Amino acid sequence: MADVLLKENERIDDLQIKNLKIIQDKSGFCFGIDAVLLANFAKIKKDAKVVDLGTGTGIIPILLAGKSKAKEIIGVEIQKQVADMAQRSVKLNNLEDKIKIINEDLKNLEGKLQTHGFHVVLSNPPYMHPDGLKNPNDKKAISRHEIMCNLEDVIKAASRLLMPHGKFFMIHRPTRLADIIVLSRKYRLEPKEIRFIHPKANKAPNIMLVHFAKDSKPELKILDPIYVYDEEGNYTDQIKEIYSKEDIGEN
Amino acid sequence: MADVLLKENERIDDLQIKNLKIIQDKSGFCFGIDAVLLANFAKIKKDAKVVDLGTGTGIIPILLAGKSKAKEIIGVEIQKQVADMAQRSVKLNNLEDKIKIINEDLKNLEGKLQTHGFHVVLSNPPYMHPDGLKNPNDKKAISRHEIMCNLEDVIKAASRLLMPHGKFFMIHRPTRLADIIVLSRKYRLEPKEIRFIHPKANKAPNIMLVHFAKDSKPELKILDPIYVYDEEGNYTDQIKEIYSKEDIGEN
Repeated sequence: MADVLLKENERIDDLQIKNLKIIQDKSGFCFGIDAVLLANFAKIKKDAKVVDLGTGTGIIPILLAGKSKAKEIIGVEIQKQVADMAQRSVKLNNLEDKIKIINEDLKNLEGKLQTHGFHVVLSNPPYMHPDGLKNPNDKKAISRHEIMCNLEDVIKAASRLLMPHGKFFMIHRPTRLADIIVLSRKYRLEPKEIRFIHPKANKAPNIMLVHFAKDSKPELKILDPIYVYDEEGNYTDQIKEIYSKEDIGEN
Repeated sequence: MADVLLKENERIDDLQIKNLKIIQDKSGFCFGIDAVLLANFAKIKKDAKVVDLGTGTGIIPILLAGKSKAKEIIGVEIQKQVADMAQRSVKLNNLEDKIKIINEDLKNLEGKLQTHGFHVVLSNPPYMHPDGLKNPNDKKAISRHEIMCNLEDVIKAASRLLMPHGKFFMIHRPTRLADIIVLSRKYRLEPKEIRFIHPKANKAPNIMLVHFAKDSKPELKILDPIYVYDEEGNYTDQIKEIYSKEDIGEN
């Protein structure tokens, strides 16, 4: 484990898998179950070139570097301080040969990341409307709300980066499903699989994983659901399995 | 109960609710769980004017007439013999004052049913692609496959019939979800609620109920799922409740 500088208000968390660690800002946005679900939903072939749009702490590139045989994973983060923290997490895990963090606006990647140059794009974008926000410059707010980018920006950027038949994996709220499908069709990303995440078996889903393929034929599969908690309020075996999955690679 | 003529190959089935009966062709398409789920998913206000597109045996109008306070329910059926059978079922239940069956192509309703004249439209359309069909004139095939109409025809007809903020309820396969959303937006029907039907709790859904509203703002709610069978292979309490629900009216 490399020595890295820890700033005030930061702590190192153990990801409990493959000895991976992450630096997080105690007062900022800390990664949640969404990032773990998304990283484990992705299908990443050996030697794949991957981009994570809005990488935040770098949690997704770090999990993917640990759990797949991807060749190169690029995390794009608009917030300078957050990108710097992610970069130090990469160093902490000695993953500089696999992961590159770039501090850039995802609307502005032309000339910086190769058009149609990637096999896989992922994104856990801001879910919430920015209306009525008190402090839109707040780091947490930027991670959660559509301030710096909206849904269309993310889908457009993903489509531009992907090679033909490349895959895009996104996690979002079911309330946006209609917008997501209409926008993804607009940018030639066909929704192929959706997996709904329900807090419990008898509850409506509150998040969903979507797998798109570039220039693919229309046929959508709704996968079996994931239930987060059982009747007693404990994590289900499904969730425990996802957290402890060692290898998300696809042969 | 009125006396009605029963043709060869026909039988009368008891719907096990409110003393309703239906005539079905033993060699033709008999109604299934889909029709029952759709009729019970619909929200029908008192005095509503309702159209069922592709009514088949008339099962949906008959269930709605029994379970709601709708003023007028029109069943549209393209197949002459099937429409005639549905008409006799209406008579059998003494529902001629509430239900009208018309033998017409749903693509050809202009001038026959009032544009923007209805509160609610329902449809349990053919689900399957017609490719490779051996006998496309077969009555069962016409009920199941997109021979006489396709998804766009149904959505377009529903949109034309509905008044502003009118509701459209459809049951279909999840594989068509992306097409359904893109087409419904095209015809100003906004998907508001989806309820997925899973054969069992840990299985992927194989059918879905969709509720659209005409000219409504985008916000989609994925409802809690319906599981058809329990672990032992018996109907779940959810399904038993739906079958025995006396009143689907909305106040």
